[in-house]
Amino acid sequence: MDKSSLRRPRGTRDFLPWDMIKRRFVIETIRSTFELYGFDEMETPAFEFLDVLTAKCGPEVKEQIYAFKDKVGRELGLRFDLTVPLARVVASHPDLPKPFKRYCISRVWRYEEPQSGRFREFWQADVDIVGSAKMDADAEVIAVAISCLKNLGMKNFRVRLNNRKILESVAESASVDKELSLSVFRAIDKLDKIGLEGVKQELRKLSLTDRQISMIMDQVSKQGSVDLIEKDLSDVLTERGKEGLNELIEIVHNLEFYDYSQYVIVDLSLARGLDYYTGPIFEISAETTINVGSVAGGGRYDNLIELLGGPPTPATGISLGIDRLVEVLSEADMLPKARTSTQAFVTYTNPLVKKETVIIAEKLRSEGIKVEVDVMGRKLERQLKYADAKGIPYVIIVGPQEVRSSVYRLKDMNSREERLLSLQEIIALLKGSTNR
Amino acid sequence: MDKSSLRRPRGTRDFLPWDMIKRRFVIETIRSTFELYGFDEMETPAFEFLDVLTAKCGPEVKEQIYAFKDKVGRELGLRFDLTVPLARVVASHPDLPKPFKRYCISRVWRYEEPQSGRFREFWQADVDIVGSAKMDADAEVIAVAISCLKNLGMKNFRVRLNNRKILESVAESASVDKELSLSVFRAIDKLDKIGLEGVKQELRKLSLTDRQISMIMDQVSKQGSVDLIEKDLSDVLTERGKEGLNELIEIVHNLEFYDYSQYVIVDLSLARGLDYYTGPIFEISAETTINVGSVAGGGRYDNLIELLGGPPTPATGISLGIDRLVEVLSEADMLPKARTSTQAFVTYTNPLVKKETVIIAEKLRSEGIKVEVDVMGRKLERQLKYADAKGIPYVIIVGPQEVRSSVYRLKDMNSREERLLSLQEIIALLKGSTNR
Repeated sequence: MDKSSLRRPRGTRDFLPWDMIKRRFVIETIRSTFELYGFDEMETPAFEFLDVLTAKCGPEVKEQIYAFKDKVGRELGLRFDLTVPLARVVASHPDLPKPFKRYCISRVWRYEEPQSGRFREFWQADVDIVGSAKMDADAEVIAVAISCLKNLGMKNFRVRLNNRKILESVAESASVDKELSLSVFRAIDKLDKIGLEGVKQELRKLSLTDRQISMIMDQVSKQGSVDLIEKDLSDVLTERGKEGLNELIEIVHNLEFYDYSQYVIVDLSLARGLDYYTGPIFEISAETTINVGSVAGGGRYDNLIELLGGPPTPATGISLGIDRLVEVLSEADMLPKARTSTQAFVTYTNPLVKKETVIIAEKLRSEGIKVEVDVMGRKLERQLKYADAKGIPYVIIVGPQEVRSSVYRLKDMNSREERLLSLQEIIALLKGSTNR
Repeated sequence: MDKSSLRRPRGTRDFLPWDMIKRRFVIETIRSTFELYGFDEMETPAFEFLDVLTAKCGPEVKEQIYAFKDKVGRELGLRFDLTVPLARVVASHPDLPKPFKRYCISRVWRYEEPQSGRFREFWQADVDIVGSAKMDADAEVIAVAISCLKNLGMKNFRVRLNNRKILESVAESASVDKELSLSVFRAIDKLDKIGLEGVKQELRKLSLTDRQISMIMDQVSKQGSVDLIEKDLSDVLTERGKEGLNELIEIVHNLEFYDYSQYVIVDLSLARGLDYYTGPIFEISAETTINVGSVAGGGRYDNLIELLGGPPTPATGISLGIDRLVEVLSEADMLPKARTSTQAFVTYTNPLVKKETVIIAEKLRSEGIKVEVDVMGRKLERQLKYADAKGIPYVIIVGPQEVRSSVYRLKDMNSREERLLSLQEIIALLKGSTNR
């Protein structure tokens, strides 16, 4: 086979051990935060029937689905998010106790042009609350996401809030046809990517007049505290728009209970790309030196479960982007730098005592210490070099004399210092130490 | 959308919270065992270029790959195991320190006929040692797998060992053409599935004579301790067969260091389905009341990395089947029965103190206690019913009086007993308690 086999499909990545140690830290911090808020884990298949995926994703995401047929011709697709599969599960289990609070940390796929912070295979960490129409639920998923960021050590981030009902009001005030409104939102959603002129051009393609466009862009350029937006908008909003604004006021009020309202602003240009949102929408951006876009986003989708064949069921949720968080935290030097989680290498000076190294290693393992032994039949010096190359912090050197005396040499690979210690002393020293 | 959307693709599963608690227990037990032996985590994409996957999998597995094309016509496939992607990574990183010891616990896909313990999407937990040609490495991966089973609480299992070199010797002794030998092994591998007559029929299809077939079947029916097999076979084996047998003797000798050799027998009918194996092969079966086939399997594949474009690199590994382990352990009632990991629900008697429930919940969370609050605006009684339905073991009841006195009612949902406690007392009681 030629060297082309060394390649990976574009937009995918391998995570070597030193990458995975960083990613595992991020994933497990998020998992434990999710569980602190009473969310339980659920998993669904990597692929779904294509019509389930495309029911309410919108034309752009539809284009990005990896679609294929199984051997009997059924159309399948790799999931592009974790929300649609959740909605399918809830639709098929109407008896689940509500609120149904689940988390999922898993991979999804979108055939996009790879760029900074954007991959074709990526990992999302989602919490959703199904069954509650109250803004308490939206506030809680936002609070959980903020807690995740804080537990990861992040300080500078901002939660942007908007509501599809406000956007609908804006579109209605500009006399945009109702059938066009989703397309208008999709265009607005690209503001960050294609700029103001780009969005205007997209809106012109939808046959909006210049007057309509300027009315819309004038409204969606507004951002600030929820009080400020309320003052600014109360006269121009439709009834539905007012409902949307009141929902945001309620969310911010609820976030005060968590002492999190200071992170939030209302940003009327926030639209979110997916068609299934029906109410509040939110996005969290990290304020960093690198531009990775938002690190979390979500919103309320009160119609999706019914659309997939279930009873009418309100739902809201938020999704953290694992890959972008890893990038932001890496850049800020906030992730573990260990190249291995192995704590000690038990090496021998003489093949005659190989058995003893295994016995010692097994004793250390029974105490929860992560230990490697030689499996290459190498001489001591090469074993030490390997431990060094791999980044294992301690080596325990065992020879015939050590076996007789039950006193072993413990070498600290950082300081190069050697100490003579009993197994009990070694266990006490290594137990609870972790590589960072 | 019609109700067909409620369906999932055949051979896939949803794992609801109570399923995931069981699976998470199995996965994390395996993960921590892997790390105790000095293996570090690595992840690779769900799909690979199709030619990488099919390089050495054999015609049957090739048929089972979910293959598809990307938008520019490149042929991709969902990975059918975790070994081929590992080999691809090692081939493209010849500079990795050796031995390269990695683990991966992740999903793979095969388009097979779904049946008991067999799914189209399933999870494997693999450890591999790359770079060592020594039997110490094969013994270690077997020892790690045995330790996983023991740490999961399993007692009755058996490790079956064979060697492709012995099977080659058997085929050569029966004068089977060298090019046919892989097909012969594949046929033998089906003994459990299609029985002795089925295998004979497959061998006849390969144009083997009855005499050849009976010679082969006579040999592969042998099983027993490595000493017994040595006595039985030493006269009939070719040089290569003897080499294979000596490797098994060495593996068993190494497993004695771990005190694990009692789990092992040699079984000459063990062949393993994949074409990439070159030396020792192994399989672990649980001895249980339900028939799920083997719970782990693996072997040595010394040519695969070179075949994928890397330098010649010996490698060996073993794969535990998460789904089958969950099934076996579930059947034996050895998995956690909790329906949620949430430890307490903080409920209010009066909406006026909703804020206080959040503040109390946040205090408990800061102590690592998993806590849920109401997000439905429900009355106390319905909140209690929900906590019960969800299986949350404790409810903390907060009303205006409790807020004034800072003494709260803690209700044990199992005993229905209520106690008046301070927040500190509640924290002390809940901290460290887990749901089982």
